Amino acid sequence: MKIERSFHSRIKKMDFENISFGNHYSDHMYYSEFRNGKWINSIIKPFGNIMFSPGSLVFHYGQSVFEGMKAYKDKHEEVFLFRPKENFKRMNRSAIRLEMTTIPEYIFMNGLKNLIDIDRDWVPKKYGQSLYIRPILIAIDKCLSAKPSNDYLFMIISTPADYYYKKPLKIKIEEKYSRSASGGVGFTKASGNYASSFYPTRLAKEEGFDQILWTDSSTHTLIEESGTMNVFFWLKNKLITPLSNENILSGITCKSILSLAKEEGLEIEERKLKVSEIIDGLKNKILKEAFGCGTAVVVTYFEIISYKGKNFFLPDLLDKERISIRLRKKLLDIQHNLSVDPFGWRLKLKRIL
Amino acid sequence: MKIERSFHSRIKKMDFENISFGNHYSDHMYYSEFRNGKWINSIIKPFGNIMFSPGSLVFHYGQSVFEGMKAYKDKHEEVFLFRPKENFKRMNRSAIRLEMTTIPEYIFMNGLKNLIDIDRDWVPKKYGQSLYIRPILIAIDKCLSAKPSNDYLFMIISTPADYYYKKPLKIKIEEKYSRSASGGVGFTKASGNYASSFYPTRLAKEEGFDQILWTDSSTHTLIEESGTMNVFFWLKNKLITPLSNENILSGITCKSILSLAKEEGLEIEERKLKVSEIIDGLKNKILKEAFGCGTAVVVTYFEIISYKGKNFFLPDLLDKERISIRLRKKLLDIQHNLSVDPFGWRLKLKRIL
Ligand SMILES: Cc1ncc(COP(=O)(O)O)c(C=O)c1O
Ligand SMILES: Cc1ncc(COP(=O)(O)O)c(C=O)c1O
Repeated sequence: MKIERSFHSRIKKMDFENISFGNHYSDHMYYSEFRNGKWINSIIKPFGNIMFSPGSLVFHYGQSVFEGMKAYKDKHEEVFLFRPKENFKRMNRSAIRLEMTTIPEYIFMNGLKNLIDIDRDWVPKKYGQSLYIRPILIAIDKCLSAKPSNDYLFMIISTPADYYYKKPLKIKIEEKYSRSASGGVGFTKASGNYASSFYPTRLAKEEGFDQILWTDSSTHTLIEESGTMNVFFWLKNKLITPLSNENILSGITCKSILSLAKEEGLEIEERKLKVSEIIDGLKNKILKEAFGCGTAVVVTYFEIISYKGKNFFLPDLLDKERISIRLRKKLLDIQHNLSVDPFGWRLKLKRIL
Repeated sequence: MKIERSFHSRIKKMDFENISFGNHYSDHMYYSEFRNGKWINSIIKPFGNIMFSPGSLVFHYGQSVFEGMKAYKDKHEEVFLFRPKENFKRMNRSAIRLEMTTIPEYIFMNGLKNLIDIDRDWVPKKYGQSLYIRPILIAIDKCLSAKPSNDYLFMIISTPADYYYKKPLKIKIEEKYSRSASGGVGFTKASGNYASSFYPTRLAKEEGFDQILWTDSSTHTLIEESGTMNVFFWLKNKLITPLSNENILSGITCKSILSLAKEEGLEIEERKLKVSEIIDGLKNKILKEAFGCGTAVVVTYFEIISYKGKNFFLPDLLDKERISIRLRKKLLDIQHNLSVDPFGWRLKLKRIL
């Protein structure tokens, strides 16, 4: 792998007191090409534009899958990645379903480690802040026939991140639009899954909601996920989350929350979850908490869930009473190297470059 | 609109005797930017690469919609577009569902007319050949948060086209994978719809089929469409096609075939079509023909339909007995200005440039 250092760091222009998600990129990017069956031209280089043919397959037929992960700092300004192998594996699951090349582990992991090492100053220091890392694989054949690409570009870019949501969320249970079809690509991080959610999400926002809680496309009676979050419900003293299936992106945060909750001795259920159970729980006040979790949002609880035009308020608990807040802290403490790491989730970044 | 002519035409290198779809681009492209709510920098310029930030929204969240249309020549080498306004309208329907900007008619139509005029030598001359035209709209905001882009790029490129399929098709009725969800984006030409079809299509190809016949994602009992084709069945002396719904791309060729068939006095049904009706028709030999139609494929008939591992052969008719072949000729005759145009489908391209 070649390393080409940036001689004009933009970090002085970065306002770490006011981080707006996804608008500022760190100084470098990782770049590697898959051409004629081989990975070539791997390089860490200054973040910058790339030439594309207007005929590039990614534009026309949407072969593009990505990942989202984070790097955190501890008190000594050491940098830690969180469960990066999980992202690596999921990226390849996405790539397979989209009929793209898979990425070898050394390409993914070496690119990642070297890039975040060279840009470690871009990892913010405060609790809850992080460097959000975006690996992305896109199709670059220049051909208009509707068939899989032979050649691909794999890149990693990154952007400093703070709280994604600053307030509890108002969520609308969707009954008309769908995020994914059974037999479709809902379980992947395919770019197309996101574009198709924007219109229904805008409609929900116009009604005053922050996000949609997606339901199955066939019956709209089963809970799936919300925005870029998997969802949890604290119902009758059980922590319930929809069982991951082909319609749901299986979240690494969700898996981590499940492990932390188990460790706490909470009773857990991963299973099909009916909308009606949630509505009954809200009506009978036995649904105490509902929250979403994901890499970008960490853990964010819901204050309103709306169904068929009716808003249901969740109980107005104190933070110290909330399971969501407790689990969020447990997770962030591990991510920031403030507590032991019983599951081996942290990967400390060596200083290489 | 600015015009920047290419001084190095590549047309001499183009082998019009051996046209392979989508691998050669005409000399020019149309390019226009939507920035801060305004269409700017509209230009016809030599086909060539464009700079993109690795953070461009199209790569990450798949906001990209396109169209496919054709220009034909007549004996006097005059060039005709076929129903371009239909493509214009459908492109904006796609754009709306993907929460993108819509394209004003003058941007679309002027770009199109000027581009094909300047590249009219690229329109092949033979019957059945054409210049395939690809308008495409993509999101160019450089931001990693999952939200609609503000800025967009609209381009038109083109590529000479001959027969897409050279032989009748072997089709597999899909029972596991799906192209689109109800409440989803199946009715749009969103790039993501195509990427998600590649994997199941490859599996079908490995079993010896050319294309998948998609069924509804909820029950897999209703016929939708196939590859880049809408489908027709000649069953009990009726020409039946699935009624267009939110899961099906409403094809301009399909609409045209319906008009031509009506004009011929054929009995037509646009309605929900069950897989079981097709299988019964095949078993009882009352399904006489099945065919797909679309801009790229024109009209192509099926020789095998496969269901639950069983191959059903369609009757081995002579070409002159086939409704598909007759309708194909009617359509191409209109497109090539060989017959009158009762529906006003042709648009003769003025020589402007
Ligand atoms: C659709 C969707 N669901 C769920 C998640 C949560 O996954 P993870 O916890 O791995 O970030 C994401 C990613 O952020 C997502 O995009
Ligand atoms: C999925 C799909 N269905 C059907 C069609 C046919 O549409 P049209 O006749 O407008 O080309 C196309 C486009 O070629 C398509 O991509």
